[in-house]
Amino acid sequence: MSYVGDMIRLFVPHPLLADTAFPLDDAQSRYLSLVMRRAVGDEVEVFNGKDGAWVCRLDQVTKRHVILCPKTQTSPQTEGPDLVLLMALVKRGPLETVIEKATELGVSEIWLVQTDRTNADRIREDRLRAIAIEAAEQTGRLNVPLIRSPARLDRCLDTWSTDRRLIFCDEAGDSMPMQAALGAVQSGPWAVLIGPEGGFSPAERARIRGLEGAVPVSLGPRILRADTAAISALTLWQSALGDWRG
Amino acid sequence: MSYVGDMIRLFVPHPLLADTAFPLDDAQSRYLSLVMRRAVGDEVEVFNGKDGAWVCRLDQVTKRHVILCPKTQTSPQTEGPDLVLLMALVKRGPLETVIEKATELGVSEIWLVQTDRTNADRIREDRLRAIAIEAAEQTGRLNVPLIRSPARLDRCLDTWSTDRRLIFCDEAGDSMPMQAALGAVQSGPWAVLIGPEGGFSPAERARIRGLEGAVPVSLGPRILRADTAAISALTLWQSALGDWRG
Repeated sequence: MSYVGDMIRLFVPHPLLADTAFPLDDAQSRYLSLVMRRAVGDEVEVFNGKDGAWVCRLDQVTKRHVILCPKTQTSPQTEGPDLVLLMALVKRGPLETVIEKATELGVSEIWLVQTDRTNADRIREDRLRAIAIEAAEQTGRLNVPLIRSPARLDRCLDTWSTDRRLIFCDEAGDSMPMQAALGAVQSGPWAVLIGPEGGFSPAERARIRGLEGAVPVSLGPRILRADTAAISALTLWQSALGDWRG
Repeated sequence: MSYVGDMIRLFVPHPLLADTAFPLDDAQSRYLSLVMRRAVGDEVEVFNGKDGAWVCRLDQVTKRHVILCPKTQTSPQTEGPDLVLLMALVKRGPLETVIEKATELGVSEIWLVQTDRTNADRIREDRLRAIAIEAAEQTGRLNVPLIRSPARLDRCLDTWSTDRRLIFCDEAGDSMPMQAALGAVQSGPWAVLIGPEGGFSPAERARIRGLEGAVPVSLGPRILRADTAAISALTLWQSALGDWRG
């Protein structure tokens, strides 16, 4: 749950249809009634990833039970660019940072990948999804990025669709600056691959560089942590090919 | 203290001169002797922000007392671009994220500013400086960004040097995309101003937009948290005008 301007925004799993009321779950009910002290007749903005944004009125309010009724659709559903983040598992703190920031930066999907040098904490996928939902509410999106359960990077590459181009943030140092590398390419489905703190193994590097549609890029002369590299690469993609172009 | 490749990197406050030994402080001594189990004759990389990078040999090692001796200068001192981050005080977690990431992204100075809508935790400047030092060690820089103690934003602007251009990440939505706005400008001293979560007050916005050399920019259609905006803006600056151009 999050505030944007004066309006609380909520993601819900229910269909949104005019005058078709639905109940919030316990946590959202408690947040609206106890934390935000909302009352019958107050309004919130709601989205579900399919039906656009709706202003909903609070129809019933008790401590644990709030019923919302969609009144006005304020925006049709919109989808952001088709941009997948392939993120190697890293420690919990930076991984959570990446989920939050990638959501703000408008990715459509986040695929968690295990690499040869992955050294990660046990992950709680429900917690990662909750972080993505809260970030989507806060940033003003109308959908929540899909988070795919961890899979081996080599398995992902085995079934790679060659029409999806892959930006590969390569630490080896002989790649073009990302902004220059993206200057000559086309829009379309893209992915950004970010490795673990220890980098990719030589076998992985060779495999990725040999992939049709892979674009190795450099992110400057300093060594970036994995979460920083993810945020920087998504920023440069949005600026060059995505919805930051204005 | 941090590892880059196989070499531990340390920032020290001592002059670095060939064969002129100096002692490490307690914390660094303990780290090298107890945590990393280094012994007499082992080598580490050391920098002090003035004398470049040196390979130093461990001359004495006890649990609390390590003496290093500079042997070979592996790089002369280099300075990154002249880029100041003016960062409104935000909560501790995101503020610490910004200090770490801004260091990785090569800023020369970080000025902490209080704005009309600042709503911040009490800050521990010593802790912020320690974060900057660790990030500088990790990222491979040869200096540590200066962190200036918090000052009122309006005081900063009162004494603003007009040859330093100021990127102003404006949430109002009528500004040019940052990448386009930077396409037509010159290198030189720059600053990036990031506001607090609540944005700037109308009086602040008017003041900043009226400043000679201010460049209002947009960072895409979604609402970004302050730490995300800082990382994205510094990334785009480095790509357009800084040392990411290759």
